[in-house]
Amino acid sequence: MKSFTHYLLFNTPERVQFINITEKVQDLVTQSGIKEGLCLVNAMHITASVFINDDEPGLHRDFKRWLDELAPHEPINMYHHNKTGEDNADAHLKRQIMGREVVVAVTNGRLDLGPWEQIFYGEFDGRRPKRVLVKSYWRINLDIPSFLQA
Amino acid sequence: MKSFTHYLLFNTPERVQFINITEKVQDLVTQSGIKEGLCLVNAMHITASVFINDDEPGLHRDFKRWLDELAPHEPINMYHHNKTGEDNADAHLKRQIMGREVVVAVTNGRLDLGPWEQIFYGEFDGRRPKRVLVKSYWRINLDIPSFLQA
Amino acid sequence: MKSFTHYLLFNTPERVQFINITEKVQDLVTQSGIKEGLCLVNAMHITASVFINDDEPGLHRDFKRWLDELAPHEPINMYHHNKTGEDNADAHLKRQIMGREVVVAVTNGRLDLGPWEQIFYGEFDGRRPKRVLVKSYWRINLDIPSFLQA
Repeated sequence: MKSFTHYLLFNTPERVQFINITEKVQDLVTQSGIKEGLCLVNAMHITASVFINDDEPGLHRDFKRWLDELAPHEPINMYHHNKTGEDNADAHLKRQIMGREVVVAVTNGRLDLGPWEQIFYGEFDGRRPKRVLVKSYWRINLDIPSFLQA
Repeated sequence: MKSFTHYLLFNTPERVQFINITEKVQDLVTQSGIKEGLCLVNAMHITASVFINDDEPGLHRDFKRWLDELAPHEPINMYHHNKTGEDNADAHLKRQIMGREVVVAVTNGRLDLGPWEQIFYGEFDGRRPKRVLVKSYWRINLDIPSFLQA
Repeated sequence: MKSFTHYLLFNTPERVQFINITEKVQDLVTQSGIKEGLCLVNAMHITASVFINDDEPGLHRDFKRWLDELAPHEPINMYHHNKTGEDNADAHLKRQIMGREVVVAVTNGRLDLGPWEQIFYGEFDGRRPKRVLVKSYWRINLDIPSFLQA
């Protein structure tokens, strides 16, 4: 029995960090033996993202500055959420802009990505273990005669 | 014949309101008898969201304030869309930040959510009936001998 | 053998432009003969979006102004990414707000959309060819007797 559900673990040294996970996800799809289907990749934590964009360090600096302008980390006490003892309200907001998940087509056993598309784990409140779920979903290749189809 | 497509109806008393629908979605998955697959949950209206985040009232207040800073409801006439007689242009914008849909893995008959992940209906122009679609999608558990697989 | 994966090509005359692709996507679903399932529609380029919202020209003007306030195109040199010779850093940011993809339910052979839901290709760095992937994914309509189900 093949496994189609996998969990990746991340524990980033930085509070905010982006990690390219494209190869990891492709490896899991390859192991699963899925040729045609969809692959869901989602953060399982609500202060982290999975998103697709460019693997260019300058752009990543731009993302970090921009997100901190839109949802500043400080002052901590500007957020109601942080009255619970947390200091990560901004991380919950940033993750909504960057998104929780991506759904990627699998075609001929490969992630069907455009030329510059790379999958990233986006951490906004790191320094502790967090999981990403990868679930591949397949289409059975049946050539059903048309007169048998609903 | 089991039904895999369901529609939830919401009519919020507030213009902007977040409702935890996690249990409702799990109930539908349970009723459908799906053990392995994906579950799509999406707003069917373009001034509402389905999103996953924390069920913490302070954070929800932060979301509302933050979204109103990024896309203020007033002045109404600052938006071209509102010249059509609407007053909800801001709701169309807010929903893009919070997202239209989530795709959640179903594993062993349960929504495969992280420890704090909760599914919310996010209303940005309420006080009238709106629908959310829940579609569960399953994988057939066939143990196909490897020599028969494509 | 039916094809379930399609690629749409766009080459917009404007740098920023929104194109309603709902009918194109419905045509592909119809051609595929899928009655029940999910349809993934995603931009294959990281300065473009696929999103669902209203087909109202005033709202589209609001979106363009709003996105340019949140992530201005100019001054070009305010972005690290643009030091690579690009001028499209803002397009990478705007696309995160508008999203990469939508997953739409297919019910009775039709995109199961709400009354005002329309699917758009959102271009933020146009004037060159870019692709959108449309992958339809089906559920086999088997009436499995309950005593045979896991």
